Amino acid sequence: MADKPARGLADVVAASTALSDIDGRAGRLSYRGYDINELAGAASFEEIAYLLQRGAPPDRAALAGYRDELAAGRQLGSLVAADLPEIARRQPPMAALRSLVSLASADDPEAETNDSAANLRKAARLTAQQPVLIAAYHAARSGVDLTPPDPELGLAANFLLQLSGHKPEPHAAEILDTCLVLHADHTMNASTFAARVCAATLSDMHSAVVAALGTLKGPLHGGANEQVMLGLEAIRASAEGDPLAAVTAQVTARLGQGEKIMGFGHRVYKVEDPRAAHLRRMSAELAAARGDDLYYRMSRQMEEVVFAEKGLYPNVDFYAATVYHYLGIPTDLFTPVFSASRMAGWTAHVIEQHADNRLIRPDSEYIGESGRRWVPLEAR
Amino acid sequence: MADKPARGLADVVAASTALSDIDGRAGRLSYRGYDINELAGAASFEEIAYLLQRGAPPDRAALAGYRDELAAGRQLGSLVAADLPEIARRQPPMAALRSLVSLASADDPEAETNDSAANLRKAARLTAQQPVLIAAYHAARSGVDLTPPDPELGLAANFLLQLSGHKPEPHAAEILDTCLVLHADHTMNASTFAARVCAATLSDMHSAVVAALGTLKGPLHGGANEQVMLGLEAIRASAEGDPLAAVTAQVTARLGQGEKIMGFGHRVYKVEDPRAAHLRRMSAELAAARGDDLYYRMSRQMEEVVFAEKGLYPNVDFYAATVYHYLGIPTDLFTPVFSASRMAGWTAHVIEQHADNRLIRPDSEYIGESGRRWVPLEAR
Repeated sequence: MADKPARGLADVVAASTALSDIDGRAGRLSYRGYDINELAGAASFEEIAYLLQRGAPPDRAALAGYRDELAAGRQLGSLVAADLPEIARRQPPMAALRSLVSLASADDPEAETNDSAANLRKAARLTAQQPVLIAAYHAARSGVDLTPPDPELGLAANFLLQLSGHKPEPHAAEILDTCLVLHADHTMNASTFAARVCAATLSDMHSAVVAALGTLKGPLHGGANEQVMLGLEAIRASAEGDPLAAVTAQVTARLGQGEKIMGFGHRVYKVEDPRAAHLRRMSAELAAARGDDLYYRMSRQMEEVVFAEKGLYPNVDFYAATVYHYLGIPTDLFTPVFSASRMAGWTAHVIEQHADNRLIRPDSEYIGESGRRWVPLEAR
Repeated sequence: MADKPARGLADVVAASTALSDIDGRAGRLSYRGYDINELAGAASFEEIAYLLQRGAPPDRAALAGYRDELAAGRQLGSLVAADLPEIARRQPPMAALRSLVSLASADDPEAETNDSAANLRKAARLTAQQPVLIAAYHAARSGVDLTPPDPELGLAANFLLQLSGHKPEPHAAEILDTCLVLHADHTMNASTFAARVCAATLSDMHSAVVAALGTLKGPLHGGANEQVMLGLEAIRASAEGDPLAAVTAQVTARLGQGEKIMGFGHRVYKVEDPRAAHLRRMSAELAAARGDDLYYRMSRQMEEVVFAEKGLYPNVDFYAATVYHYLGIPTDLFTPVFSASRMAGWTAHVIEQHADNRLIRPDSEYIGESGRRWVPLEAR
């Protein structure tokens, strides 16, 4: 029993999980015992979602069945479809997704059922639905019809198709697929932890995932990738001469004022985040393929300056920003795209929590006044 | 640093708060240093919401101003109003409230602003809105128009007016008001903790409160009061002779099979929950006033049996069930009514979290396999 709080529960073990593991000193991340460096580029997002939710990699028949479940899950529910146009007009992306996933429970026949078979099916439906919700939201706010899904395409390629209206180049789809693999799970990050706190009251998977979406929305969590891109754009826009020199000048000045630079440092990693290396490489590839590498070079420059000044490494959000940018994803949809990947992990954590549940109910330290006497209103 | 998890974070201090304090051994609960026994029956819910959100009891002018804010907050937003009929038809109460509060951010001009002044105003609006959402939901699913609010009435009386369509007896309104006071805050309960985990990413108050609503929904948390009533109704319906004898027989049998009885025991209280004593008294008063005390007597019998067999005390949910029942609140709205009270605490915790923030990001213990090698799909 601790009497003093560990601020932010740093280093406090809050749960046991067989889903993912981080070695922060070695800079290693694994999903169910598979090193992320083996998975990136080798496994599809569908295989990873299956691995996380169902425990082992699928064989070909199991993967085909899971892909069919995902393809069936691309059909939006009637309540979502009815409310989407006005939500897209009235709510920013992450607030809209919070609303839409909450509404989607109305069309899920097992929304209020927590048994493990129902949870597995809901996990597949929620994983399938999330990218479609993002594309449908973007179509609605843009005043265009949503491009129909292509059942021949995997989740990443189909998302790019539905988002942009045209079939993506294979290389772009592969890179997004790898991004989704890299973002799928990450132990007790804040949104996953929120999902588990929710599920541990034996609340349902939609409630847990809605809690996670609201938590991911914050700029200290999922919102960081968007902030990175906005930061790069702001420096580019304000640079009077060389944008790389502007990066150095502005980052040095901000660090000198004690400001934080979005996309650097992580509570758990003491060395480089292994996901960042993959994302850096993909950012470079896309920059070369697009023939426009300025944002990539600015990112490299920023990385060098921050490391020289503070010894901090880029985290998963830093190079994800330029990767998503080069993929043509609107900046305000970066965090939603993160959510489309993390949905695999959130749902897997809900399954795991429900399978061996205990209410998550910590203590708090009271730091207020004591022994006050209530004075009736008339005497105040 | 702990290496082994404290299951469910039991006894782990997760945060500091000046909002409420529990002495589980003495059976004491206080809000900002005021013992709940001084507040119950003496302070209005509006005074308590103000106390929690703004730090000190209001004087008469401050309370009048706060009541005006609350009265203004009874107007539902346009997105909520548009989507409510279909949501009421398609989603059960707590899922509907999760959706409606998420949608409500569209009509809050400060939804995306976290500064303390905006948070105070949003806290008042969310506190005012919650009972109206419940009444509006109930009216919509019942196919009747929502009774307009009465600006002369306090929050509890106005809720009963809007829920039932007729002005409540003063005694009923006073009892509901006291219930709302008793449920307003309770340190790091699961829904409040979920709200703080969400807010600690610097996400917004609506997101945090939506996370809390989804968490409260679970039967191990807010859902317990409804389960208590359903249990009493089931025993009454199945009793062939004396319902009190049926209570004894059924509860004894279920305890003998190792089942838990909803409404008993609490992780933090080792003696009687101080709120339960007030709720027991109010249940008795309402039973006498209604001339129908069977559920009250069945509850007393159940309390005696569970204490004799297990030494467990009733918790806050146990007598809340019959109190709400006697007040004419539909059983499936018990947890929503709890949320109308706890909204005061949730919003106050978000204010407190944002005022001195650190990301809440715990560790986990990895219990899965290690060092697995990924076999490509073709070779599986």
